[in-house]
Amino acid sequence: MPKNAFYAQSGGVTAVINASACGVIETARQHPDKIGKVYAGRDGIIGALSEDLIDTSLESAADIARLQHTPGGAFGSCRYKLKSLDEHRAQYERLIEVFKAHDIGYFFYNGGNDSMDTAWKVSQLAATLDFPLVCVGIPKTVDNDLALTDNCPGFGSVAKYVATSMREAGFDVASMARTSTQIFVLEVMGRHAGWITAACGLASEAEGEPPHILLFPEIPFAPDAFLARVKVCVERYGYCAIAVSEGLHDADGKLIADMGVKDAFGHAQLGGVGQAVAQLIKDKLGYKYHWALADYLQRAARHIAARTDVEQAYAVGKVAVEAALAGKTAVMPVIRRISDTPYAWEISLAELKHIANVEKKMPRDFITPDGFHITEACRRYLSPLIEGEAFPPFARGLPDYVRLKNVAVARKLATFEV
Amino acid sequence: MPKNAFYAQSGGVTAVINASACGVIETARQHPDKIGKVYAGRDGIIGALSEDLIDTSLESAADIARLQHTPGGAFGSCRYKLKSLDEHRAQYERLIEVFKAHDIGYFFYNGGNDSMDTAWKVSQLAATLDFPLVCVGIPKTVDNDLALTDNCPGFGSVAKYVATSMREAGFDVASMARTSTQIFVLEVMGRHAGWITAACGLASEAEGEPPHILLFPEIPFAPDAFLARVKVCVERYGYCAIAVSEGLHDADGKLIADMGVKDAFGHAQLGGVGQAVAQLIKDKLGYKYHWALADYLQRAARHIAARTDVEQAYAVGKVAVEAALAGKTAVMPVIRRISDTPYAWEISLAELKHIANVEKKMPRDFITPDGFHITEACRRYLSPLIEGEAFPPFARGLPDYVRLKNVAVARKLATFEV
Repeated sequence: MPKNAFYAQSGGVTAVINASACGVIETARQHPDKIGKVYAGRDGIIGALSEDLIDTSLESAADIARLQHTPGGAFGSCRYKLKSLDEHRAQYERLIEVFKAHDIGYFFYNGGNDSMDTAWKVSQLAATLDFPLVCVGIPKTVDNDLALTDNCPGFGSVAKYVATSMREAGFDVASMARTSTQIFVLEVMGRHAGWITAACGLASEAEGEPPHILLFPEIPFAPDAFLARVKVCVERYGYCAIAVSEGLHDADGKLIADMGVKDAFGHAQLGGVGQAVAQLIKDKLGYKYHWALADYLQRAARHIAARTDVEQAYAVGKVAVEAALAGKTAVMPVIRRISDTPYAWEISLAELKHIANVEKKMPRDFITPDGFHITEACRRYLSPLIEGEAFPPFARGLPDYVRLKNVAVARKLATFEV
Repeated sequence: MPKNAFYAQSGGVTAVINASACGVIETARQHPDKIGKVYAGRDGIIGALSEDLIDTSLESAADIARLQHTPGGAFGSCRYKLKSLDEHRAQYERLIEVFKAHDIGYFFYNGGNDSMDTAWKVSQLAATLDFPLVCVGIPKTVDNDLALTDNCPGFGSVAKYVATSMREAGFDVASMARTSTQIFVLEVMGRHAGWITAACGLASEAEGEPPHILLFPEIPFAPDAFLARVKVCVERYGYCAIAVSEGLHDADGKLIADMGVKDAFGHAQLGGVGQAVAQLIKDKLGYKYHWALADYLQRAARHIAARTDVEQAYAVGKVAVEAALAGKTAVMPVIRRISDTPYAWEISLAELKHIANVEKKMPRDFITPDGFHITEACRRYLSPLIEGEAFPPFARGLPDYVRLKNVAVARKLATFEV
């Protein structure tokens, strides 16, 4: 009997993480001699710890194919980081126990830095315990901050969404600036790395086109220089469109989100850096503002996913299974760029231990010297990642996404406190 | 010599107001014997008052055609309401003076309630002054609140955008609810009428699908009933997705946006009803929340426009010109629904005086008895309006929108203080 596989989604979901799931399941189904069933963890690794496994073999081929155009995490994801082996050895041993009970020989973990760390630790423990388990990470993150891969599946689609949204809002503000709003601020994700903010910059392709200012977490916020630049933009173009990372902070590392808005009880409100920056402009320069908070809309926007991103998300899932079948363990498929123009890429493998817990920020030469926009080098890097459209099917005017049956596998073990 | 035409965009722009402009200009160009040039007001009616006219005859046919897939207001719009004839007769006389100077015999005004009022007054004054001017309104508003027309161009596209966004965010939150966010709130436009909020409800097509709660400006906010409903949703579905109108208020008419968030100086912040509602849930029920503020993104989202909406926006522009050529004045093309399924519509004409300043709110039977969702009758009404896709062309991964040359017509008159 071939061994079964375990697949779990981890951390914040994306518009294309299900395309990776699709790549894993479809590829596994092509090798029934080597892989039995693919079990998915319900709500990620918690599903493994609590022995709450989903039998994906009960889903039709058509429904699995529909994962390729469905956002969110089809089996549920979680924010749950396993601690160090020393602190929480019981959890790791429980994972191995569950894998043993369900005859699992392959562990596919689809996530970011933390998840690659977990996958690496699981592979180490399996080796220590002499339990035969092939562990393969599958990259996913809208933050685009994983090491060793040219880019991360999930990023290209959020990049396309924010650049499109910024361009569209720019057309709106430009129309209204004379008598109404002069300032538009779009707050986007990115606590430590400014890749998503940088992507907003792609909307501007000529002098004067919005966005006019980008505020990166890599560049400490300097209010005076910022306000001076805003003033120049309004005087020159009639309005000023700004994209800001949620993680924008000052030179002391203090989040700008904390400085502005307080709730009715005086508590600082997170997620309000866009409003804080806009209000600063209003207070100091008097311009009327509007602001938008894309929040989950940006990372769930499968309707405007980048075709390249969908293809790469599928490919890393597929290659993960192929690598596992070739006996490679403690590895992760990475995207290697072969050329910018025309854009060409391939998938290779990197070792998990070199990826775990490393965070890739924007290189300084991707940001203009004044800190307020992206350079040509950055455009060359970003532009191919948003290319191509991959519209989902629509029904009754709305994207037609799949909801799987997600039938549970019968439990075999005693309960375990997660 | 045929008379020239004046066309202006008014109020908040939409994803498809330029499709109406396209309908006006292309139709006018088909009748060179009857209409000379189409002059557009730069920044709306202000362009007429300040004699800042744009010569659209200098734009290529190809660029005019591209207006059909370009959001925002191609000639600029404005929030500028002419007062009553008694108070500001000088402004109305100035309009007539500018129209005379540029040999304008047709006045097309593309806007909402206020604009239809202005167009009506201009038609009255022209008649009084014995100046031959055909005045035709063209409906436009994301708020869908114009009288006598079954729906308003601009609404279908924002409806499709918010319903799509809510569906997508719903997939995201559902994936993460077990260990992370249980509450998602999307704040949408609609100060007095809840049409856009209602459209969010289309994303839910079966029991339990998000959004679970809609908060309309037509229904006074009752915190206790709301919180009880949120609790039921989280217990039953694991999470609760909510759409809220910016204009949500309590039984005394006090805006909920004012009750929650204050800025660093203690001022109430507008545009924060989404956060206020989310924070209320956090305070009272302890659930973690995320919220999104779509703001301009929703009304500029041409990339996900409804095909029906684009077609209707074009049609009202076209019919406006045809009506003018037939000598009809003080009228506005309206959309008449012939059937729900299959959806069929036609354009007829209504008199401006019956449309000016009237606001059409959601009928009570479009809202469920508990006040938290839409009824089947509402779905029957809304569903056809978001049908069909009309994706713009893309270049380098982004929607390829047109920026017109917008060359000014030489001034002939003394300046006038607007």
